[in-house]
Amino acid sequence: MLVLHQMHISGNCYKVRLLARQLGIPIALKDYGLHDGSTRTPEYTAKNPNGRVPMLELEDGRFLPESGAILWYLAEGTRFIPTDKWERAQMLNWMFFEQYSHEPYIAVARFWLAYKPKDELTAKAHLVPEWHTKGNAALGVMETHLKTHDWFAGNACSIADIALYGYTHCAADGGFDLARYPAVSRWLDRVAGQPGHVPMAERW
Amino acid sequence: MLVLHQMHISGNCYKVRLLARQLGIPIALKDYGLHDGSTRTPEYTAKNPNGRVPMLELEDGRFLPESGAILWYLAEGTRFIPTDKWERAQMLNWMFFEQYSHEPYIAVARFWLAYKPKDELTAKAHLVPEWHTKGNAALGVMETHLKTHDWFAGNACSIADIALYGYTHCAADGGFDLARYPAVSRWLDRVAGQPGHVPMAERW
Repeated sequence: MLVLHQMHISGNCYKVRLLARQLGIPIALKDYGLHDGSTRTPEYTAKNPNGRVPMLELEDGRFLPESGAILWYLAEGTRFIPTDKWERAQMLNWMFFEQYSHEPYIAVARFWLAYKPKDELTAKAHLVPEWHTKGNAALGVMETHLKTHDWFAGNACSIADIALYGYTHCAADGGFDLARYPAVSRWLDRVAGQPGHVPMAERW
Repeated sequence: MLVLHQMHISGNCYKVRLLARQLGIPIALKDYGLHDGSTRTPEYTAKNPNGRVPMLELEDGRFLPESGAILWYLAEGTRFIPTDKWERAQMLNWMFFEQYSHEPYIAVARFWLAYKPKDELTAKAHLVPEWHTKGNAALGVMETHLKTHDWFAGNACSIADIALYGYTHCAADGGFDLARYPAVSRWLDRVAGQPGHVPMAERW
């Protein structure tokens, strides 16, 4: 069986669980601690030199890091990757946007504000306004697109939607007000209404 | 003809020029200023709400942002994307690694140290050690891979190599010492030795 090396509260890891469940792909979970450095040990970095989760372990012992690459690998040949070349490029556009312009602000604000001990936040407190400015800019870019489109690529839910759902649906944890983004809010409901959807907290 | 909306010194834009030249795809260049906000005007953000270059303009007026998505779009069906599913996933792994763990430190250090007026750097000077620590970590991850592989995905130069070449080859501009990474240095020579290679400065 495939094994997902993960932290359960990580949106990047949730993306993989969400896709796997919607596709009916059995996947075992191997958990790592949030603050214990367990993904920076020599044993772990021998598998992924970048020392991060998620990392997918295949049955034959090969390892694949990076949520976007894992989503692509699991979704190839399924309804979650458009068959049209232009739509595939649009899908990747939004997946790179998510990792470069969205996650570093929205996920990072959530991690520090919701999961780090309060006394450690002090050293990062001066960054909170920048996280909020840039995170809101990313939500604004999504809102502009979703005012005239139901999905991010083509006319169906793709792995771009899964990738953007990961941290957008819990952005309030980082101090973002999703009520300011009505088209984003309606899209969140659309994603959550897809067959096989599982909430982030659900384990198996 | 395709039009690349770009800044010539941007490594993200160079990636697209490098691939296009190696594939023999004619592409016109439309330049934007580095410090004049010309990608944040209403006219520009109507085309790319995220206000960034590169952006590819198709003959029919459609627009595609994000260097990784543009590379994919231009390379589909060519030797720059492996036909094997696992190798394609590895390629995307390295492209997401580049945008998340490499570019935000190596490209950003270069931009501030080599292209920003010195008096503006003062406000960012406290970040230089973090850029260098994390950028060197990314170069170390590349070094580990390249000690036992010639290329990042499969046995040929793919768009993962193009993506990583963009800012690695000029990392010295940001204060990185590439002599510390002999396998990376040999790989840089391999990429530069590919047929059709063009240096970053070359215009057409």
